[in-house]
Amino acid sequence: MPKVIITVEYKGTRYSGWQTQNVRTQASSRRRLPAVQETIEFCLKQVLQEQVNLIGSGRTDAGVHAFNQAAHFTVSKAIQPLKLRLALNALLPEDIVVKRVAICENQDFHSRFHAKGKIYRYLIFNRVYPDVFCRDYAYYLPQALDIQAMRSAAKALVGRHDFKSFCASGSKVKNTVRVIRRLIIKRTAYNLQPGDGYERGKPLVIITIEGNGFLYNMVRVIVGTLLEIGRGRLEPRAVVEILRSRDRRQAGPTAPAKGLCLMRVRY
Amino acid sequence: MPKVIITVEYKGTRYSGWQTQNVRTQASSRRRLPAVQETIEFCLKQVLQEQVNLIGSGRTDAGVHAFNQAAHFTVSKAIQPLKLRLALNALLPEDIVVKRVAICENQDFHSRFHAKGKIYRYLIFNRVYPDVFCRDYAYYLPQALDIQAMRSAAKALVGRHDFKSFCASGSKVKNTVRVIRRLIIKRTAYNLQPGDGYERGKPLVIITIEGNGFLYNMVRVIVGTLLEIGRGRLEPRAVVEILRSRDRRQAGPTAPAKGLCLMRVRY
Repeated sequence: MPKVIITVEYKGTRYSGWQTQNVRTQASSRRRLPAVQETIEFCLKQVLQEQVNLIGSGRTDAGVHAFNQAAHFTVSKAIQPLKLRLALNALLPEDIVVKRVAICENQDFHSRFHAKGKIYRYLIFNRVYPDVFCRDYAYYLPQALDIQAMRSAAKALVGRHDFKSFCASGSKVKNTVRVIRRLIIKRTAYNLQPGDGYERGKPLVIITIEGNGFLYNMVRVIVGTLLEIGRGRLEPRAVVEILRSRDRRQAGPTAPAKGLCLMRVRY
Repeated sequence: MPKVIITVEYKGTRYSGWQTQNVRTQASSRRRLPAVQETIEFCLKQVLQEQVNLIGSGRTDAGVHAFNQAAHFTVSKAIQPLKLRLALNALLPEDIVVKRVAICENQDFHSRFHAKGKIYRYLIFNRVYPDVFCRDYAYYLPQALDIQAMRSAAKALVGRHDFKSFCASGSKVKNTVRVIRRLIIKRTAYNLQPGDGYERGKPLVIITIEGNGFLYNMVRVIVGTLLEIGRGRLEPRAVVEILRSRDRRQAGPTAPAKGLCLMRVRY
């Protein structure tokens, strides 16, 4: 039984998230948006002529994008990776692309259990007037941000900590200790062709966060808290107290989904 | 009567183009898409409490984007530029943003007649599998492109030439001589944060073209012709013969609108 790993890019705007939801948990199963997982499974079935179970490295919420989501499935017959990619991309909607198909030699490989880390990126469009081109991919904030204060707070979050305060309050996960390996905040120009000078200024704030794993909403709550600090509503050092409190109410609001993108899963 | 100049950014996907079309020339006036011009005029009327005539530097076709379109209008009362920008952006739909509002001292200024040049950019997404994030802004071409051959042909187009072969065949313009000042073709990485290494390769081909003015569809026909050369269907030197022929049928196809963006109008 060949085991296949795929790398997927998607724009999350039109989806209920990565994972197919149990219909019983949905208020109205008729009107729900499709999940990315079931959309790909549907195309896989057409190509492979068999129903496979596509297992992702983790869920992404409704509206969250992915540059390189990893997923695996087991299929009964041999496949040709390049042909399968071509066939899938011909069938998939415009907002999902399969970038890589590879046969996995390790029969025990599991895209979720074997993930050693993930890199997320959060985009903030920060200028006194909004923009048009990254509306679906960035959170627009017109207020000035103190990037130095945000960086100072970010330092306190790097390392092994109990992130219970930064986890959605409904979550039932028991172990809320995670390791953040990197938390980088950059302000950059918004140019597809850098240095071309079509636009002065650096309106784009990019927050890159790498960790061994993330709790539900953890990246968005961290970003929401850093933005409170950037806007001067919280002191950078407040982060230490928020971590200690293990109380979701002490942290900032959950930043909107559309600014978030899963950049890479490390194995 | 104050004269006001505005700089506008728009995503052209949902619009019939910049200019409001005469209803009589429309097959069905009911089902037509709105024009960018009338959408802004509608918001200006709400803010200024008077109907103004917004005159752009030139038309852009349906689906074509603008990073910095220039336009002017005359209004009977004094306005405050920053307040007007704020009010307009609060009313405008998400795919149109007014980036700059300025009062023009020169009462004779005309955004179309006084334009000395324009810069357009055409994006091609060139990789064996498509992408998700620039679907609305780039023409996807999976075939390998010979960029050196395209550059060689581009050289022959720079300068003062009769571009009749590169003008939509229905056009009634008499003088088809134009000057192309710059025609640059670059292959670049597709990264909002360059050098971060999320993606190997350079899938984005960026064609930047600057001229004193452009005929109807001229940029798109030039791009379509360069792509024929890049795919080896035409020799680079064929461009000289195409220019000489003054025959639209000798040039390549018109490249799709969605890859085109008006970057700047020079005054």
